[in-house]
Amino acid sequence: QIDSARLWGTIHETAKFGATPKGGVRRLTLGPEDKQVRDWFRKACEAAGLEVHVDTLGSMFGLRKGRDMSKAPVGLGSHLDTQPTGGKYDGVLGTLAALEVVRTLNDAGIETETPICICNWTNEEGSRFAPAMMASAAYVGDFTTDDILSRKDIDGVTVGEALDSIGYRGENPVGRQKFSGFVELHIEQGPILEAENKTIGVVDSGQGVLWYDGKITGFESHAGSTPMPLRRDALATLSEIVLAMEAAAKKHGPKAVGTIGEAVIANPSRNVIPGEIAFTVDCRSADAGIMDTLDKDLRAAIAEISARRKVDVKLDLVWRKPPTHFDPKLVDAVEGAAKMLGYSHRRITSGAGHDACNLNTKIPAAMVFVPCKDGISHNELEDATQADCAAGANVLMHTVLALAGV
Amino acid sequence: QIDSARLWGTIHETAKFGATPKGGVRRLTLGPEDKQVRDWFRKACEAAGLEVHVDTLGSMFGLRKGRDMSKAPVGLGSHLDTQPTGGKYDGVLGTLAALEVVRTLNDAGIETETPICICNWTNEEGSRFAPAMMASAAYVGDFTTDDILSRKDIDGVTVGEALDSIGYRGENPVGRQKFSGFVELHIEQGPILEAENKTIGVVDSGQGVLWYDGKITGFESHAGSTPMPLRRDALATLSEIVLAMEAAAKKHGPKAVGTIGEAVIANPSRNVIPGEIAFTVDCRSADAGIMDTLDKDLRAAIAEISARRKVDVKLDLVWRKPPTHFDPKLVDAVEGAAKMLGYSHRRITSGAGHDACNLNTKIPAAMVFVPCKDGISHNELEDATQADCAAGANVLMHTVLALAGV
Ligand SMILES: NC(=O)NCCC(=O)O
Ligand SMILES: NC(=O)NCCC(=O)O
Repeated sequence: QIDSARLWGTIHETAKFGATPKGGVRRLTLGPEDKQVRDWFRKACEAAGLEVHVDTLGSMFGLRKGRDMSKAPVGLGSHLDTQPTGGKYDGVLGTLAALEVVRTLNDAGIETETPICICNWTNEEGSRFAPAMMASAAYVGDFTTDDILSRKDIDGVTVGEALDSIGYRGENPVGRQKFSGFVELHIEQGPILEAENKTIGVVDSGQGVLWYDGKITGFESHAGSTPMPLRRDALATLSEIVLAMEAAAKKHGPKAVGTIGEAVIANPSRNVIPGEIAFTVDCRSADAGIMDTLDKDLRAAIAEISARRKVDVKLDLVWRKPPTHFDPKLVDAVEGAAKMLGYSHRRITSGAGHDACNLNTKIPAAMVFVPCKDGISHNELEDATQADCAAGANVLMHTVLALAGV
Repeated sequence: QIDSARLWGTIHETAKFGATPKGGVRRLTLGPEDKQVRDWFRKACEAAGLEVHVDTLGSMFGLRKGRDMSKAPVGLGSHLDTQPTGGKYDGVLGTLAALEVVRTLNDAGIETETPICICNWTNEEGSRFAPAMMASAAYVGDFTTDDILSRKDIDGVTVGEALDSIGYRGENPVGRQKFSGFVELHIEQGPILEAENKTIGVVDSGQGVLWYDGKITGFESHAGSTPMPLRRDALATLSEIVLAMEAAAKKHGPKAVGTIGEAVIANPSRNVIPGEIAFTVDCRSADAGIMDTLDKDLRAAIAEISARRKVDVKLDLVWRKPPTHFDPKLVDAVEGAAKMLGYSHRRITSGAGHDACNLNTKIPAAMVFVPCKDGISHNELEDATQADCAAGANVLMHTVLALAGV
């Protein structure tokens, strides 16, 4: 059993790096608060006897030796960056539970056959730089390191510049640290476990994701003197697209979601018809066929709206992550650990994307979910109980022990 | 006849203050470019022998003596501020044509019975500070000077601070400069004169205006893991409001317009359902009954949408300007001048608001319109011909001469 109070203490200790007045955390990837939590994490890893190294995209790895150093370690961990108005648990729980697993093994003097390696992946959230789960995507070769290093945030700062500015452009090439498997603990970020009163989600699959960048070009014109039929209103166009995306997702019941999270009017003025809007789209399903339908429906709606309104709409797919099917053996291992520890559990699909989803395309991976209050995440009100966090960390530890061998 | 080339020259000379790469002008009220054009205007007035004074809201007045100085002068002019992406003619034409009238009278050695006074009103556009036509509204007592001085722009800078920062908080109390009548030349900013091939619009009325500030409070949540039915999406809510406003205006055919020109998502992120949006509404009609219907329809739509989506929507009316009916005698004077000069003309309703609309509530006022290309205004592509601008300035001059007496 891990030390529940110690785990809870580290979660609340690190929540001060980027703490918001409303009780949440604002710790955008590679910003000053991210540097603070990284420095804290590095020290904690070193104090736990881990050998820390950082790759060229800033992902941090803490290696604990095993008896057989010829074997690739079992990886565990998550991320320490947050959304602009994020919570205290998303990513943090999985990373600090990994640290807690190491501390517990150290205290109990347990040596594993295979080494283990705890991880803090760079830019899981994807709100400062796209795509989300950026570093783990580069790790599995979905993007080259150079491509990722040149991605820009909204102020034009590149990933490379941001890494340098906090001193976290590491020496190790991306992908050099090998793993024989990877297990990630995370809050569910959805309402199912809580509704069904289950402590552990045995994650066997994950939704696929489509991310788009959109740009609407209508025509700026006087709000008072331009007759309604002559308008080419970019905001009215966006409004129809938002509702079309919503309807396209709803068609599939619980099997799809669709969101427009960002929309910026260029040169806004109260008495000017909006002429230009940049927006982004996020839509998802665990079914690849439904993903194709969402894409088709969205494009068809946009074509119709843009022709009718005589407004130009560009839609670029910037990221397509297929649905994830986690490694059956590792999923069984997670389920076995939950059963052995006597926690109520169920199989579950992840609504959110996770680094484990990327890693699973190259190495066996699986995930452990614990409930979060009202299913709320990506919100300062995100909450979880100490008991559930501890239960998740225990399942994580016993899954890792089963994989690494004692 | 005014000097067409000279008028055209001053329009293009002042267009350099805040010139944009796309050929427009960005000269937000009381900003550094506004100071430049004001300094230029003051010098040009003094060079034309006018006595210049500035009121406490920064409106500039250039007085030309008449034979009977006991009479309140005839006012003419407009404004020199622009939209964020505005054109070279909106406001500028009317102000510089007033200067051109004085120069022409000077050159011809014409003395008027009543003095005349040319004006540059502060913040006509209303995009940096609300409401539009701010200084002329204070002039007629719709707002107190202190109220207006405390209005803030988006960065929290007050009108008073902005005036001080460019040295244009004048000595004269607002309203001290009296007028016996006021005539304003302006581009139409709509498509009617051009479509009907008329040179002069004799403006007999103006639309009333409703301005609202709105705020939507939904709930931020994860775009991937929050099921569609559980969402309280602020952007989907706004989208329905935008389309409801559009439909409510369209119901009245050419008799109403409705626009949402500004909408800002708080803490936007691609994978977060928008939780909070601030927006503004501008809707107008020349018919006070239709204005009431627009208000009622908008509020009813918002009530229904907000209840159905379980999202809170606040809507505050921040400005209500009733429809304008210009002084019949002055309207006749404008028509008489157009007829006398042999220009094709028609009576017309102004879609936009103008300082003359405010002044008309206290003193006899009227307006002269000239066509603008494709009816485009509040756009960098705004355009008008030299011949039409000169025709408008001639009608302005002869209307003023008819009122002031030679
Ligand atoms: N787990 C999580 O919130 N990841 C962020 C990436 C996404 O799914 O949008
Ligand atoms: N004439 C003009 O564009 N005025 C700005 C105020 C408004 O009508 O919105």
